[in-house]
Amino acid sequence: MKDLVRRLRADSRYLGNGIIKVDGFINHQVDSALMYKCGFELSKLFDRYKPDIILTAETSGILSALTTSLALSCPMIYARKKKPITMAGDPYVAKTLSHTKGEEVTFNISREFLKSKQRVLIIDDFLARGLTMLALNDIIQQAGAQLIGIGVLVEKNYEGGRELLSSLRVPIKSLAKIDINNNQLVIK
Amino acid sequence: MKDLVRRLRADSRYLGNGIIKVDGFINHQVDSALMYKCGFELSKLFDRYKPDIILTAETSGILSALTTSLALSCPMIYARKKKPITMAGDPYVAKTLSHTKGEEVTFNISREFLKSKQRVLIIDDFLARGLTMLALNDIIQQAGAQLIGIGVLVEKNYEGGRELLSSLRVPIKSLAKIDINNNQLVIK
Repeated sequence: MKDLVRRLRADSRYLGNGIIKVDGFINHQVDSALMYKCGFELSKLFDRYKPDIILTAETSGILSALTTSLALSCPMIYARKKKPITMAGDPYVAKTLSHTKGEEVTFNISREFLKSKQRVLIIDDFLARGLTMLALNDIIQQAGAQLIGIGVLVEKNYEGGRELLSSLRVPIKSLAKIDINNNQLVIK
Repeated sequence: MKDLVRRLRADSRYLGNGIIKVDGFINHQVDSALMYKCGFELSKLFDRYKPDIILTAETSGILSALTTSLALSCPMIYARKKKPITMAGDPYVAKTLSHTKGEEVTFNISREFLKSKQRVLIIDDFLARGLTMLALNDIIQQAGAQLIGIGVLVEKNYEGGRELLSSLRVPIKSLAKIDINNNQLVIK
């Protein structure tokens, strides 16, 4: 997607070790107009698969999940890293490793809202190693729901997430792809 | 705001101890169309104060902050509870107590994005005791920026936040107000 690729080329920075700094427009300060356009683009890629609900993970996936769900006129749900006291009963739980924080992360989703047979679209800001998606899909399976696709703003080609997730046999779409060549970002 | 009040009356639940469960449409599963309308309503209340940027706190404030910033055509920034490795240098930091989690929370905001003299509008989902707002305002003051208003979806009248924040001398607006009477929610 042209606007996102242009912005990444202008304002992202490579910090080494596979880590990309995009906190001026994606995951700290947020360019909401760009995020809205990205949600619309993601919605066009997945509209035909008729998702019932968008699923993402706290925190930075919430922005793109919200704008995609707006464009698709369906609700969204974000997995919580801690079970809040307002969450009823035993939630669905899955654990994974955070890429940028280097620690175990737990995702909690209330059994009230993720329902059997629902068609679930996972949206996130980054596809890196794919571990967050696997954990979210684990919860989808626990709920007896159906993963119908995975959409992200930015795919890190060099992290192997697409390969890891290919066994899920759903469409995986990204609005921009990043490679690293000679310690420089190559964005397309 | 009629739509939000109606939804709160239909789908919120009082859990006792001042805690209101709204995780079916505000802070876990999210009704994105309602969130969009709320952002538009908040934007109408603050447009005249010409905010340069919307500030909120991770996590559940992100939704309403995003839709408000969309309607106001300005960026938003969300305070992070942990300093990510992508955050440059020493961030602005403020600490407070979480109402629903009963533990200390730290807010981190990068010095790169919150600038001196910026006109900052704080948006959040709830106004309860007002401690989050005070911590965010602390960071605004550290940055030499200016708080110009506070807008929330839901104000808990019984928590005293409005009184605590009155010394800030900025407009405080909420789209719905909740009182508790005989252990029942009164929503208006």
